[in-house]
Amino acid sequence: MKNVKEYIEEHKDRFINELIELLKIPSISADSAYKKDTMEAAEAVRKTLELAGAENTELCPTNGYPVVYGEKVINPSLPTILVYGHYDVQPADPIELWDSPPFEPVIKDGKIYARGAADDKGQMYMHVKALEMMVKTNQLPCNVKFIIEGEEEVGSVNLGAFIKENKDRLKADIILISDTSMLSMEHPSITTGLKGLSYLEVEVTGPNRDLHSGVYGGAVANPINILSKMIASLTDENNRITIPGFYDKVEEVSAEERAEMAKTPFDLEDYKDHLKIKDIHGEKGYSTIERTSIRPTLDVNGIWGGYIGEGAKTVLPSKAYAKISMRLVPHQSSEEITALFKNHFESIAPDSVKVVVKPHHGGEPYVTPIDIPAYQAAAKAIETTFGKPSIPVRAGGSIPIVALFEKELGLKSILLGFGLNSDAIHSPNEHYGIFNFLKGIETIPYFFENFSQLKD
Amino acid sequence: MKNVKEYIEEHKDRFINELIELLKIPSISADSAYKKDTMEAAEAVRKTLELAGAENTELCPTNGYPVVYGEKVINPSLPTILVYGHYDVQPADPIELWDSPPFEPVIKDGKIYARGAADDKGQMYMHVKALEMMVKTNQLPCNVKFIIEGEEEVGSVNLGAFIKENKDRLKADIILISDTSMLSMEHPSITTGLKGLSYLEVEVTGPNRDLHSGVYGGAVANPINILSKMIASLTDENNRITIPGFYDKVEEVSAEERAEMAKTPFDLEDYKDHLKIKDIHGEKGYSTIERTSIRPTLDVNGIWGGYIGEGAKTVLPSKAYAKISMRLVPHQSSEEITALFKNHFESIAPDSVKVVVKPHHGGEPYVTPIDIPAYQAAAKAIETTFGKPSIPVRAGGSIPIVALFEKELGLKSILLGFGLNSDAIHSPNEHYGIFNFLKGIETIPYFFENFSQLKD
Repeated sequence: MKNVKEYIEEHKDRFINELIELLKIPSISADSAYKKDTMEAAEAVRKTLELAGAENTELCPTNGYPVVYGEKVINPSLPTILVYGHYDVQPADPIELWDSPPFEPVIKDGKIYARGAADDKGQMYMHVKALEMMVKTNQLPCNVKFIIEGEEEVGSVNLGAFIKENKDRLKADIILISDTSMLSMEHPSITTGLKGLSYLEVEVTGPNRDLHSGVYGGAVANPINILSKMIASLTDENNRITIPGFYDKVEEVSAEERAEMAKTPFDLEDYKDHLKIKDIHGEKGYSTIERTSIRPTLDVNGIWGGYIGEGAKTVLPSKAYAKISMRLVPHQSSEEITALFKNHFESIAPDSVKVVVKPHHGGEPYVTPIDIPAYQAAAKAIETTFGKPSIPVRAGGSIPIVALFEKELGLKSILLGFGLNSDAIHSPNEHYGIFNFLKGIETIPYFFENFSQLKD
Repeated sequence: MKNVKEYIEEHKDRFINELIELLKIPSISADSAYKKDTMEAAEAVRKTLELAGAENTELCPTNGYPVVYGEKVINPSLPTILVYGHYDVQPADPIELWDSPPFEPVIKDGKIYARGAADDKGQMYMHVKALEMMVKTNQLPCNVKFIIEGEEEVGSVNLGAFIKENKDRLKADIILISDTSMLSMEHPSITTGLKGLSYLEVEVTGPNRDLHSGVYGGAVANPINILSKMIASLTDENNRITIPGFYDKVEEVSAEERAEMAKTPFDLEDYKDHLKIKDIHGEKGYSTIERTSIRPTLDVNGIWGGYIGEGAKTVLPSKAYAKISMRLVPHQSSEEITALFKNHFESIAPDSVKVVVKPHHGGEPYVTPIDIPAYQAAAKAIETTFGKPSIPVRAGGSIPIVALFEKELGLKSILLGFGLNSDAIHSPNEHYGIFNFLKGIETIPYFFENFSQLKD
């Protein structure tokens, strides 16, 4: 690869402005009020691919939002890289906690602030600009295909069908994804594992109507009190999850590998200070890095019931609800864990209440072995552009379709993300560093070059 | 008393229509959006008192809503009954669960359906009509004074000051209140005890912002998980409250009195069937009646935190909240219990979170001895109008100002309510039986007669 940094230096302002235009579109897939905007984002992405030099670009229909497709096939005998990303974004609430409107991007301290800046538009767009660079300078070393979907934030529910129906079109040798973080720009890393996900919604019903808590309190089960007990019982005093069978298939990582992981740079005081917490909290016997990478976890993502407005109301409510999710590690199965949770939760409910458990979308855990050519191609690319070797890191987040890709297309994914944990994805004031954005555009062509050489 | 039933029969349609007009006014004291309506209700009540024959009616200003005052003093040497009631009502939400709009009263199956029908406008208005009857037929046997406040549903926060400043004007021999229920119209009862109330709001904070539950889950305390554990720990496996010192001052009711209470008519299957629950739930070693009358209780009235909208969001939230209240029995002190709760809750919070506990209004427990003349006057009145003796019952609800009356005015209260537990007060579709309304108007004059004779 020649003149990569020069090309980026010459065009970076345009790159940033184009990304800002994409970020203005509120493509919130979870909320049907943003249907038109999400469709607009799909077409906008297709157009950028076309302008970057991709061919056969189209919006492929699904039962939900379309998959944006594009390709540049220069020689069928060369390797093919399949790039995946998504154009939909998380909801922005609570809006009042944003310092600037989530869909009016601003640049502050070298970072672009907007919902979707890091997850995933900023990262996805690095690949579009890398394609442009390689095509315009006639340096594209292998074939490339793009699938950019619009439902990642709601579980990619229609992607499986799309993949099954397009196996021929999607034939490739590796999948490349930028939707994860690095440890830091001083310690570049490649994500070698993703947690799985099991997500359920529970509803606990006590009496068939809201009651006066004086007349009935203490005599009739309060579904909020009961739900609290049930949630509390899901973890023990060592913060281990108590669902029977939950840990049966968990891969116990070897002492050697844990020793390697322990070398990952991590400053506990910094970590606590950033979050303004006095103490961390997790499964006994494991470090923070281990808890977020190789151990399964359980979180209540939302809870509500009774009177939550201003002032006091002495009600014994009829219902209480919670959204509960578990992050899974190899070799747990999302479907099995979801069933285990449902059965267990229903079984621990006392007779004084009724419980309904509704599963949401899930996803399987995933691992990239570090000895495959594609991983080595990525590691070499990072060494070139960062001037130091990368560190393999198993992440806490989930990208459910990665396991789906392996199952349906037989392909591993290289998780080459340039974000940072401080990007506040899924939170107010999400942002993406311009340095990270440009460094990704610089690194990706070297991955293409290395992969086309290593892969035979 | 003569021709009581005849008077009621002749004027009952007008009585009901007047009550309906009062019920149309959305006098929601908890919500400042209804300020004008609540003031309108105050004036409407004053007007009805004036028309019923009361003198010196006025809206007495307070730091909040006014106290409506009225009196008929026929002879200073006669006993004086002080009637208390309230013209404010509970909020009506959730509105979608009402079969008819909460402030558009309808009559169905002999019941008036509206917010405030039983709590407290329907019951308060019985006294206005009883006054009318006695004045118009020249049968008022003693003096009467009315104080009808507008803040009972928000803790009567300004009533204490009003009472202190008006001790002379409010001089009386007994207080009469209709804001409670009977066991049934077949088993009339008089409420001889009210529980106290301690109400607090808690806020648990983990990280200083919402986090991605994959990146941070399992490593950082989730305030919802922590709050659930803390709430769960407040009661043990026997449903006893675990706050240290909580039961220290609880009156242990004698075995004899418990045996008497056990004779109260109560059908457990009916009770469960009405609420559509398979099982009741409460403190081990006590019956349902005992749990709601002589035992203190704890209920979470509201809980919220994290993402509670449509669909799934994998957030580890910054904060979780709950509204928690305790019903108290003699001789627990609301102030002491509130302090015990606050100290305990703060002490059980792990270092990984911060907890803020904010007390709301409270109230002391209260008991009317059944051997005082006023109680006997009420019991005799019920025997006259119902044709059977009344049963003394300690209620689960609280009317905080009753203990305040005793403290500031040195007066006991007779809790002569004509409601039913099925009236659904504090719930959607609140209603009040026309039979109950008219029976109350019939019974009150006999109480006046008996009291003026018994009290020397």
